[in-house]
Amino acid sequence: VSALKKAKRFRVHIFLATSKIHLKYKFKKKEEEILELAKKATRLTRNLCEDIEFSPEDATRTERDFLFKIIETAIKEGAKTINIPDTVGYSYPQEIYSLISDILNNVVNINKAIISIHCHDDLGMAVANSLSAVLAGAKQIHCTINGIGERAGNASLEEVVMAIKTRRDVFVDSYTQVNTKEIYRTSRLVSTLTGFIVPPNKAIVGRNAFRHESGIHQDAILKRRITYEIINPKEIGIEKSELVLGKHSGRHALAKRLKDLGFKLGERKIDLIFKKFKELADKKKEVFDDDLIALVEEEIRERKKLYELVSVRVTTGTDMIPQATVRIRYKRKNYQATSFGDGPVDACYKAIDKITKIKPKLISYKLEAITKGKDAQGLVRVEIFYKGKNVMGSALSTDILEASVKAYLDALNKII
Amino acid sequence: VSALKKAKRFRVHIFLATSKIHLKYKFKKKEEEILELAKKATRLTRNLCEDIEFSPEDATRTERDFLFKIIETAIKEGAKTINIPDTVGYSYPQEIYSLISDILNNVVNINKAIISIHCHDDLGMAVANSLSAVLAGAKQIHCTINGIGERAGNASLEEVVMAIKTRRDVFVDSYTQVNTKEIYRTSRLVSTLTGFIVPPNKAIVGRNAFRHESGIHQDAILKRRITYEIINPKEIGIEKSELVLGKHSGRHALAKRLKDLGFKLGERKIDLIFKKFKELADKKKEVFDDDLIALVEEEIRERKKLYELVSVRVTTGTDMIPQATVRIRYKRKNYQATSFGDGPVDACYKAIDKITKIKPKLISYKLEAITKGKDAQGLVRVEIFYKGKNVMGSALSTDILEASVKAYLDALNKII
Repeated sequence: VSALKKAKRFRVHIFLATSKIHLKYKFKKKEEEILELAKKATRLTRNLCEDIEFSPEDATRTERDFLFKIIETAIKEGAKTINIPDTVGYSYPQEIYSLISDILNNVVNINKAIISIHCHDDLGMAVANSLSAVLAGAKQIHCTINGIGERAGNASLEEVVMAIKTRRDVFVDSYTQVNTKEIYRTSRLVSTLTGFIVPPNKAIVGRNAFRHESGIHQDAILKRRITYEIINPKEIGIEKSELVLGKHSGRHALAKRLKDLGFKLGERKIDLIFKKFKELADKKKEVFDDDLIALVEEEIRERKKLYELVSVRVTTGTDMIPQATVRIRYKRKNYQATSFGDGPVDACYKAIDKITKIKPKLISYKLEAITKGKDAQGLVRVEIFYKGKNVMGSALSTDILEASVKAYLDALNKII
Repeated sequence: VSALKKAKRFRVHIFLATSKIHLKYKFKKKEEEILELAKKATRLTRNLCEDIEFSPEDATRTERDFLFKIIETAIKEGAKTINIPDTVGYSYPQEIYSLISDILNNVVNINKAIISIHCHDDLGMAVANSLSAVLAGAKQIHCTINGIGERAGNASLEEVVMAIKTRRDVFVDSYTQVNTKEIYRTSRLVSTLTGFIVPPNKAIVGRNAFRHESGIHQDAILKRRITYEIINPKEIGIEKSELVLGKHSGRHALAKRLKDLGFKLGERKIDLIFKKFKELADKKKEVFDDDLIALVEEEIRERKKLYELVSVRVTTGTDMIPQATVRIRYKRKNYQATSFGDGPVDACYKAIDKITKIKPKLISYKLEAITKGKDAQGLVRVEIFYKGKNVMGSALSTDILEASVKAYLDALNKII
């Protein structure tokens, strides 16, 4: 709690499992013991912090009477928000609706707290469940960008927000303060940083969410957008700009475009991005908005770069063993190693391992051409496992091997 | 209809938009005209086919009275299934429930037809909406594997099926005949063939769906699985087998493993896969189940291979211009070309374009290491655009450049 003192508004969230399954197998405790624990924990916290959120974990599998009792206790001890978690993503909208209604009707002091909802997506219903809770009277939703979270993840922020906005007719009393124009860019940034790819058929932020393929749909869309589109892509920050920047574009045009894309960047940052933009424009004929967003993302992620790539050279082919020479800068000195491998990336990574002597385990490797055309930039994301921890790394380049090496070094820089 | 004569059971699905928005902007027709059209189309089809499914498109945005009228007409003319589409993915579960209930209560001849539901996922609620329709009395769900479909896609089969199975207590009168043990493998196959990546946080079939990261969850899972897992991964065909095959494994062990994984393959196919398995085992220390599934998928996709890779050799690096030499077999003759490029893949593709002279546009490029370790197999998926059509190609190799070239040729083979 003392660590929170610097926060403008701070809240402590206590959670305690209440379902029979969790009581029996996780805690090996009786209901009365859990109730006593909830009381003590809330009281203790109340002396340190005014704003307490209390979650009866696995609430959707908890017996109603016990659930009412524990909520009443938490509120009595000072909890101001009662969060209802569907911890294992087991529930469906009608059930959530009746659960929230029952809590509102049966917990005597419920008017002293607001109800929150926390849904997991194990059966694919996290968003619908969250919204159903709101219809029943919940005032707060736990959600995450791109729906990331434990297992199948949590309710996705972009879907929740856009549903509330699109169905104003239904959610008359609800609102969010999310600036929807930041949604697309934020989703992209989170995807880059976490290595969780957004599939093309993801609602709101997927590549195809506003793409119409069938002839019937295309024809109707051309006649009138609302025939098959309930959200204007501009609302979530997807600009269908036709303005293309190229190697003859100047710093001013770039700065304006970055501003139009919603980035607020200082002069120094713009200079840095302009330099990278020029390098890119020399390699690519057209620099698209997606290219620029990717460049800014690279720039934003300022990390200590202990290992830095100096150069890499690879020779590979079907009739030979792939071979790589990598040169790395580490604490002002250059190190170089050569290695064979099963493939060119493997050869590079083995050469790096020779230099660093760290040898982590490679868990996953993904490469995506995130911009259009053959001269697209490739985004490589790697996940490595070292001393009990999973670490992600990512990097961008028009050369997939350069990106692969940089992504690996990015991950290594996080573990050393 | 004559093309359908060979089918054991055949059905014709007629759809006709009924919402005011579609009538006004798409058809520029009045309600009476649409009603007359529905009557005529159903009657015409009825003379050719017994089993007719009728969809009032954009039903969720259609005025109720007109919707009831057109459904009644379609049933009168012989439609046996009435499908209710949420065409723009605009609805939410409670609304779908009341819509289906209203249809059941207000369409006089509804007892002569069964109700079906067809949901889109634009607001992330397709699965919950479909299940809500079932609770209201619908007997058929339109769904797709991995939730693919127009824009954000349709209700995902695996989520719908596993929700009905997991919540037997709620869906007492409903069932599916889906063999759930095929779900994981089918999802993987569809992903490979379509190039639509399954994100790690996808319910049921995502890589993380049964992964527990937080310490609290891990601890509880070890005590008792049901604390945080409502579905046993085995139910959907994810075997947590520890049996590892390597280069010393024989044909018999491989055949048994393939059988355990659920593949029914003839002797010839097993021979072919065994050959490839041996080649792979020479490159990789351990061959995992995922490797085998990938190999079988490669083998299953038998296509005419007009362009075939003979060899490729690439030299690339940060201090040089990437350069590729590709040799391709086409109609019993070998062709060879060399090219520079912005990156090694670009260099390969430019060399191929020189040989084929087709020059399609590259829409997307993705690479995933689908098996574990540094010597993993890389799956490359490319999407190219040529003469108004998008075509996907994919290929597998431990060398990402070899896989890149093969995936491109795979796509080219589909357009020539």
